[in-house]
Amino acid sequence: MLGVGGGYSVTIRAEYPNQTGMLGRIASAIGEVGGDIGAVDIVRQSRERITRDITVVVQDSGHAQAMASHIKTIPGVKILRVSDRILLLHLGGKIEVHSKVPVTDRATLSSVYTPGVAHVCAAIAEDVAAAWNLTVKRNSVAVVTDGSAVLGLGDIGPEAALPVMEGKAMIFKDFAGIDAWPLCLSTRDPNEIVAVVKAIAPGFGGINLEDIAAPRCFEVEERLRQDLDIPVFHDDQHGTAVVVLSGLLNSLKLVGKELQDIKMVISGAGAAATACARLFLSQGIKDIILCDRSGAIFQGRKKNMNPTKEWLAQNTNHSGFKGTLVEALEGADVFLGVSAPRLLKGKDLQKMSRDPIVFALANPIPEIMPEEAAPYVRVMATGRSDYPNQVNNALCFPGIFRGALDVQAREINSEMKLGAAQAIASMVGKNELHEEYIIPSIFNRGVVRAVAREVARAAKRTGVARRLRGSHSGY
Amino acid sequence: MLGVGGGYSVTIRAEYPNQTGMLGRIASAIGEVGGDIGAVDIVRQSRERITRDITVVVQDSGHAQAMASHIKTIPGVKILRVSDRILLLHLGGKIEVHSKVPVTDRATLSSVYTPGVAHVCAAIAEDVAAAWNLTVKRNSVAVVTDGSAVLGLGDIGPEAALPVMEGKAMIFKDFAGIDAWPLCLSTRDPNEIVAVVKAIAPGFGGINLEDIAAPRCFEVEERLRQDLDIPVFHDDQHGTAVVVLSGLLNSLKLVGKELQDIKMVISGAGAAATACARLFLSQGIKDIILCDRSGAIFQGRKKNMNPTKEWLAQNTNHSGFKGTLVEALEGADVFLGVSAPRLLKGKDLQKMSRDPIVFALANPIPEIMPEEAAPYVRVMATGRSDYPNQVNNALCFPGIFRGALDVQAREINSEMKLGAAQAIASMVGKNELHEEYIIPSIFNRGVVRAVAREVARAAKRTGVARRLRGSHSGY
Repeated sequence: MLGVGGGYSVTIRAEYPNQTGMLGRIASAIGEVGGDIGAVDIVRQSRERITRDITVVVQDSGHAQAMASHIKTIPGVKILRVSDRILLLHLGGKIEVHSKVPVTDRATLSSVYTPGVAHVCAAIAEDVAAAWNLTVKRNSVAVVTDGSAVLGLGDIGPEAALPVMEGKAMIFKDFAGIDAWPLCLSTRDPNEIVAVVKAIAPGFGGINLEDIAAPRCFEVEERLRQDLDIPVFHDDQHGTAVVVLSGLLNSLKLVGKELQDIKMVISGAGAAATACARLFLSQGIKDIILCDRSGAIFQGRKKNMNPTKEWLAQNTNHSGFKGTLVEALEGADVFLGVSAPRLLKGKDLQKMSRDPIVFALANPIPEIMPEEAAPYVRVMATGRSDYPNQVNNALCFPGIFRGALDVQAREINSEMKLGAAQAIASMVGKNELHEEYIIPSIFNRGVVRAVAREVARAAKRTGVARRLRGSHSGY
Repeated sequence: MLGVGGGYSVTIRAEYPNQTGMLGRIASAIGEVGGDIGAVDIVRQSRERITRDITVVVQDSGHAQAMASHIKTIPGVKILRVSDRILLLHLGGKIEVHSKVPVTDRATLSSVYTPGVAHVCAAIAEDVAAAWNLTVKRNSVAVVTDGSAVLGLGDIGPEAALPVMEGKAMIFKDFAGIDAWPLCLSTRDPNEIVAVVKAIAPGFGGINLEDIAAPRCFEVEERLRQDLDIPVFHDDQHGTAVVVLSGLLNSLKLVGKELQDIKMVISGAGAAATACARLFLSQGIKDIILCDRSGAIFQGRKKNMNPTKEWLAQNTNHSGFKGTLVEALEGADVFLGVSAPRLLKGKDLQKMSRDPIVFALANPIPEIMPEEAAPYVRVMATGRSDYPNQVNNALCFPGIFRGALDVQAREINSEMKLGAAQAIASMVGKNELHEEYIIPSIFNRGVVRAVAREVARAAKRTGVARRLRGSHSGY
C-alpha cells in the first residue's frame, strides 16, 4: 500500500559518459518503468564522465530497485547508489531534547542541578501540585503505543511503531508547542500497559494513547481514565470522532439538516467507529446503525460479537435492523466508513436520502473512491491529502492537548471534545463553506488556537480544570 | 541543608523614598541578617520614589522571608516582591522536545508522518535492528527514578525528583549530545520498576537509573542488565565508582603506590560504596574494609546485615577485622567516605599510612571538612564544587553513554568503566598533576570525548558492541 496517495522519492546517483543524449536515454528508461522525475543535479563532471543525482518519485522500494536495474542496462551507465529520501530524513530519529538554558558554566549547573535544584525538589515535595509549575510536566505528553495497530500496517511491534510516534511528537511540537516523548511498549497485555502508563504518569501532563488495537484500547483507556488525574486520550478513537463531528456539523449546514434528525450508517466497529458512535450519541444523533463484516450490529446478534459490540447493539440501531451494510444505506443521510477499502459501489449510494454525506476514511484506499462516489453524493470526505475535505487527526489532537494543558485539566471529557469539534468547524467561515471545503487545512494555525481556547473553556465549565485564571499559552 | 556549599539567590524588589542614604540602610539591614548582596538594579524612579531589584544570596527560602521582613521595618520601605531566581529558572521545566525538521508544509508532513512514514515502519518491522538507524533510539536514554533517594533529600517521590532528572537530561544533552527523557515512576516495587523499564526499553538506546534507594537499586539493575540488550547503568553506583577510581589512579601516581598494595577503608555500605568496592576489587585492590553504622563489615557479623553486605563480607575484609571505622583507619592508605557528615576528626587521620588519600564524598557536608583534614592528608577530594578535586558524576555518565551509544553497546561492563576511569584520569597531564588537581574540570570538553572513545573501544574489545565500524558521533 505504500506510495498510494503518498508516494516517496529516491535519489539515484548515476555515473555515465559525458555525451549528449545520455541524460535523455536515462530519463526515458526511468519513464519506461513508471518513475516520475523531480530534481536533477550534477554531482561532478570531467570531460569523459559525469555523475548526476536524479530524484524520482517511485511507488515503493522494489520499484526503485527495478528502476535502477533498468537504467543499468544502458551501456556505460553505472549506478553509484540509490538513496531513499524518506529513510534519509529519518536517520537517527526526527526529534531531540533541548535544554532551555544551556549548561555551560558552573553557576548554571549549580542552579539547574545539584545543589540548587534541591530547593526546587523540596518545594514540590512539600506541595506536589507545584510540579505543574516547576517541571516539564506542565507542557509534556507521553505518546504511548504497543505497536499493535500502526497505520495500515497492523501489529508491527514497538520499534517499528517508533517512527510514527516521533512524527506525532513533531506535530505536537510544531503545531501546539507541546513537548511529547514517544514510549513504545514491549507488551500487549492490557494489565501491563495500564501499569506502565500509571507508573510513568507523574512526569507528564497528559497521555496520548496511539495505535493500540481494539478491543484492548477500550479497556486500557477506560482504566487509565479512572485511575489517573491527567488527561488520557486515545487519538485513534477520539481524534477521529472529533474531526468527523466537525466535518459533519459543517456538512449538515450545507444540506440544511439537523443532527437529531439524521440517519447515519457507520461501517466498522473498531476503535474509531466506536468512539464516533459514542460521541454522536452524546450529541443527540438518534438513528445510528453500525455494520461490521457480519452486517448490522443489533441486540441479540450472536455471531462475531464482543463486549464493545454488545454495548453498541444496546445503544444504537433502535429499530433492530438486521441486514447488510448496503441494505442499511436505504434512506441514510450520512455514511461514515472507518473500515476497509472499496466496500461500496457508486450505485449503493443511490439508496441514500437526498444530499448524501459520505465520509469514507479507510486509508489509504477509502470505502469508495471519490471519483466513483462523485455522481451520487453532495459532500464527500476522505482521510487523504490528495482529495478535498481531508479528515486528519492533526486538526484535533494538538489543540485538544494544548487546551487541556493550559488549564491543567484532569481529563478530556465529551464537552471538551464537542468544543474542539465546534472550534474546528468554525474555522470554515460562512462564506467559505462549500461541498469541497467543510474542513479547514491542518496548516491553518488558527485551528490549534481555536480548539485550545474552546477546550480550555469547556474544561473550566465542567469542573475538570485545575487552573482557572491566568493566560493560556497563547499558542 | 539547602544552600550549604551552594546557596541560592533571591531578588528582592523594594520601593522606597528617593533619598540619599536609603540604599545604605537597606544594604545594612540585609547584612544584619546574613545576606550577601549581588547585583543592584534600578527598576524605575521618580523624584519621590525609587524601585530597585536587589539580588541576595541567602541560605534558604525562610532566610529570604526573614530578610524581607527585616527590610520592611525601615520606615517608608515597601517590599513589592521576593523572586526566587532558582525557582524562576525552573518554571515550566528545563527541557523541551524539538523537531529536527520543522513540520510546516504538507510535503514534510507526508514524509515524517503518514503516509511516508509507513515505509520507514515497514523497514524496521522487517529488521528490528534498523531502529538503531531510523529512529531516535540511536541517541536516546531514559533517565529512570522512583524518587526514593534523591540528593540528600531522601524519599521525596517521583514528582519532586523530576527537577533533578530534567537537570540530568540537560547535562546529557549539553555535555554529550544525548537525548535523554526523564521517567519518574509512581512505584517503589522492584518487580514493577523492572517491568516498566523493560516495557519502555524498545524506544531507548540506554537506561540511566537514578536516585533509587539501596538495596532495591541492586536488584532492579541486576535484573534489567540480564533481561535487556541495551546498557542499564545506575549512575549513583557506577558513575561515582568510575570517578573515584579515576581520582584514585592519579592520587596513587602522586604518592608512588600501586593499587594492589594499598589498604582502603570505605565508610558506607549503600549503593555508591558497594559499587566502588566491586569496581576496586575488579581492579586488583586486595585490602578493602567497609564500615557502616555498626562498624566493620565482616564474615559472620549478625547485626544490621543484608544480602549486599553478606556479599561484601565474603569478598572484602579478608583479615576478618571487627572494629570501628576509626580503628579500621590504622595503617590505611586510602579513606573513601560515601556515607554521612562529620564522621571523622583530624586526629583520626593520623593513624593512616604515609601520604594519606582521603575522599570524603558525603554531600553537602563531607565525612571530614577539608580544613580540618588538611594538616593530616596528602590528597583530599570531596563532592563539592567549592573545594579542589570535586568528584562529580558528570565527569562520567555523559561520556560513558556517548561511547556506549556510538557503538550501540549491549551493556556497560567493567572494562568499559575502567576505560572511562582511565580516560578521566588521563585528562590531568603529567605536568599538571598535583595534590589539588587529581580530577579534571567537568567543563573540560575533552573529558567526554576521551571517555566516549575509551568506552567504545572497550565495548568493541569485549564483544558487546553492535557497531564495529564507522565514525563515532565525534562529540
